[in-house]
Amino acid sequence: MREEAKQNKIAYSILGQRAQPPVIADLMHRALAQPGLLSLAAGFTDNETMPRAMIEEAVVQLGAQENNLEHLQYCSNQGRQGLIEALLHRLNHYQEEASTSVFSADQLMVTNGSQQALYLAMQTLCDAGDIVLVEEPSYFVFLELLRGLGIEAEPVPSLQPDALNAQFERMRKTGRLDRVKAVYLEGYFSNPSAYSLSTSEKASLAEAMQRHDVYVPVIEDAAYRELYFVQPHAVPSIYSLDAFVTLPKLYLGTLTKPFATGLKIGFAACSDADWRGKMLSVKGHQDFGSANFTQAILETVIKSGAYDMHLANIRAHYRQKALCMANILENSDLRQRGWSWSPPEGGLYYWLKGPEDVDTRMEHTLCKTCIDHGVLYVPGDLCKTVSGENNYIRLSFGALPMHKLEEATQRFVSVVSKR
Amino acid sequence: MREEAKQNKIAYSILGQRAQPPVIADLMHRALAQPGLLSLAAGFTDNETMPRAMIEEAVVQLGAQENNLEHLQYCSNQGRQGLIEALLHRLNHYQEEASTSVFSADQLMVTNGSQQALYLAMQTLCDAGDIVLVEEPSYFVFLELLRGLGIEAEPVPSLQPDALNAQFERMRKTGRLDRVKAVYLEGYFSNPSAYSLSTSEKASLAEAMQRHDVYVPVIEDAAYRELYFVQPHAVPSIYSLDAFVTLPKLYLGTLTKPFATGLKIGFAACSDADWRGKMLSVKGHQDFGSANFTQAILETVIKSGAYDMHLANIRAHYRQKALCMANILENSDLRQRGWSWSPPEGGLYYWLKGPEDVDTRMEHTLCKTCIDHGVLYVPGDLCKTVSGENNYIRLSFGALPMHKLEEATQRFVSVVSKR
Repeated sequence: MREEAKQNKIAYSILGQRAQPPVIADLMHRALAQPGLLSLAAGFTDNETMPRAMIEEAVVQLGAQENNLEHLQYCSNQGRQGLIEALLHRLNHYQEEASTSVFSADQLMVTNGSQQALYLAMQTLCDAGDIVLVEEPSYFVFLELLRGLGIEAEPVPSLQPDALNAQFERMRKTGRLDRVKAVYLEGYFSNPSAYSLSTSEKASLAEAMQRHDVYVPVIEDAAYRELYFVQPHAVPSIYSLDAFVTLPKLYLGTLTKPFATGLKIGFAACSDADWRGKMLSVKGHQDFGSANFTQAILETVIKSGAYDMHLANIRAHYRQKALCMANILENSDLRQRGWSWSPPEGGLYYWLKGPEDVDTRMEHTLCKTCIDHGVLYVPGDLCKTVSGENNYIRLSFGALPMHKLEEATQRFVSVVSKR
Repeated sequence: MREEAKQNKIAYSILGQRAQPPVIADLMHRALAQPGLLSLAAGFTDNETMPRAMIEEAVVQLGAQENNLEHLQYCSNQGRQGLIEALLHRLNHYQEEASTSVFSADQLMVTNGSQQALYLAMQTLCDAGDIVLVEEPSYFVFLELLRGLGIEAEPVPSLQPDALNAQFERMRKTGRLDRVKAVYLEGYFSNPSAYSLSTSEKASLAEAMQRHDVYVPVIEDAAYRELYFVQPHAVPSIYSLDAFVTLPKLYLGTLTKPFATGLKIGFAACSDADWRGKMLSVKGHQDFGSANFTQAILETVIKSGAYDMHLANIRAHYRQKALCMANILENSDLRQRGWSWSPPEGGLYYWLKGPEDVDTRMEHTLCKTCIDHGVLYVPGDLCKTVSGENNYIRLSFGALPMHKLEEATQRFVSVVSKR
């Protein structure tokens, strides 16, 4: 008899044994537990600009086709045909540099937020012990996802040719290069750093991969691409850069992050038909298709132009909020105290680097003092694979309305200034 | 260098290598590819009874709280608080035999259909090579899910005490009993057989498990429990049967199968806090929470009573449709030709057993002839783990409106009669 059975305990799988409560759940729990706490942590959309009326109109419009209520029925596993067409038009519209349409309908799939596409990609590519190359810092929920699957995240500190060659050489010598199964990039207004990759950074990566025979899929997470403030980041995605032609590619995005996160619809475009089939197979087991109703709403608002109107509004709005946060940060003494940051040109985040002796981690003084003073941030160590770098902070200006954002940033600045 | 890299092929994970296109996708594809084909295959909800107006009203009602549009924002990972409360009330209302409320809020989680809960359960419990005990026949998407994860499905042909003891004894001798990590049951109007388990069948299982020290979680999939025609199946769930008190339990259901599948909201109640935490952890990686918007709609219609009104309507409607199919089947010569079936008292399916020499499989004559004559069914071998039993068919009366259901059943009967 197994040991667990003797003790009347559940015998978990390896994955089950590895499972830990997600950090984000803990942060959300804290935010909810303390009344009056203002969260600069959550990467939520803006409460004030929620497209309530657009969604209602879409629902009514869909329901008006009395004889065809298929939007209330199951969807096919790969996603709603009409939404895929609308999405395709948007995607190809972006690739202004390309002479032809780089995305095609049979490459697309609709997912439960872009998060599910990340999970499916990792499940189909990596076994426990494999390595995924990530930027430093990187999206912390993705880093958690990797840990949950037993996959190692290896940081790529620089996307310059010499640095990449040196890193790949080093990894080959220690046998680590053969264990690399994928590369994960955030090309546009990264979470958490707000940094966008340049064409030459992307190209250098592709060239180094090919020089070192690292023929593995490259995943570009473009969740924040549409959330620019003034103009799009004028760098093509990996999908339309010549340097990536021979590499398998997965391009991820979300339709609801810049619209209403409560509808939770993401998508992926995959350059490799076989790999896409495998991801869809696993999705078939996980849910056999995302909710048709929310997909139909998005199809309707995209086709009517309402979606783009909303994006235009929200861009101006987020720009204002980023400026509001910038003013408070710049008018504080944080820079004199050794803090530094770059103003974002899109996305939802400020990424602050503190002096070496600051420890921003959750169980340390600064974080606790901030919570005591009614403000929550994301400790930067969650976004890092290099341990020991515990002096970073992510601040989000996404969710809070302007006056609360001001108040929250003031609270943050006053705690950090007093330190 | 790896072999795959040399050939410029993607090196998949073990799970990725195992991934096959889902059978259900193939069936859906056929249904869409042939105009005029009537599908008795899909387990869809009814097109005619879609609760369009209820959904619209709920959306408008939710939007009326201008200052609180949180239903358009991300939801917490475990699910929407208000929906969980509404659900809890429904669940405990069912357990009429129990003197106390058997379900509690901290046991519940909301998922992307009950399918996701099944996937999370299997991920956290089973490694490849482990065994899950299933009824025979069983839900074919679950059997596919198991294959996708490399888990073996072992049929339990009988839930009688002697048969169970003999089977467990046999499994112990061959070392298979120690590999059993979970038991999967469909207690109510099973997919595909429409069979509901008796109290003594459930209790016999629990007793046999305890006698043989098979201390593993029991999963009861109650997806069709609410879809009775005249009265509920008067057998408690595993959650409130004394025989299961010491065993870990997972009770699954869906809120959208009997309402509008396009909204795709399922749930699970888990008796083991540690296990639930692990499933939520994995859900955190897969999507960090189901769509808040569709959860809010369901909360609204449940609390207003609209949901129960819809259920009352749809029960009467499905009963009519089941009777329509019954009439055509009983008035045919199928019984004389050696076919047999029991009239369902709930659910969406007829489960037909053909003569031994009939082969109902997808690539064989009967199935192809049916498709040629414009009707599609689910071949029963998909629902079976015992190979060689290829003379079963699942017919669904769920989706088609009455006149088309009649036409489709006539087509089916005429092909089978001519055979």
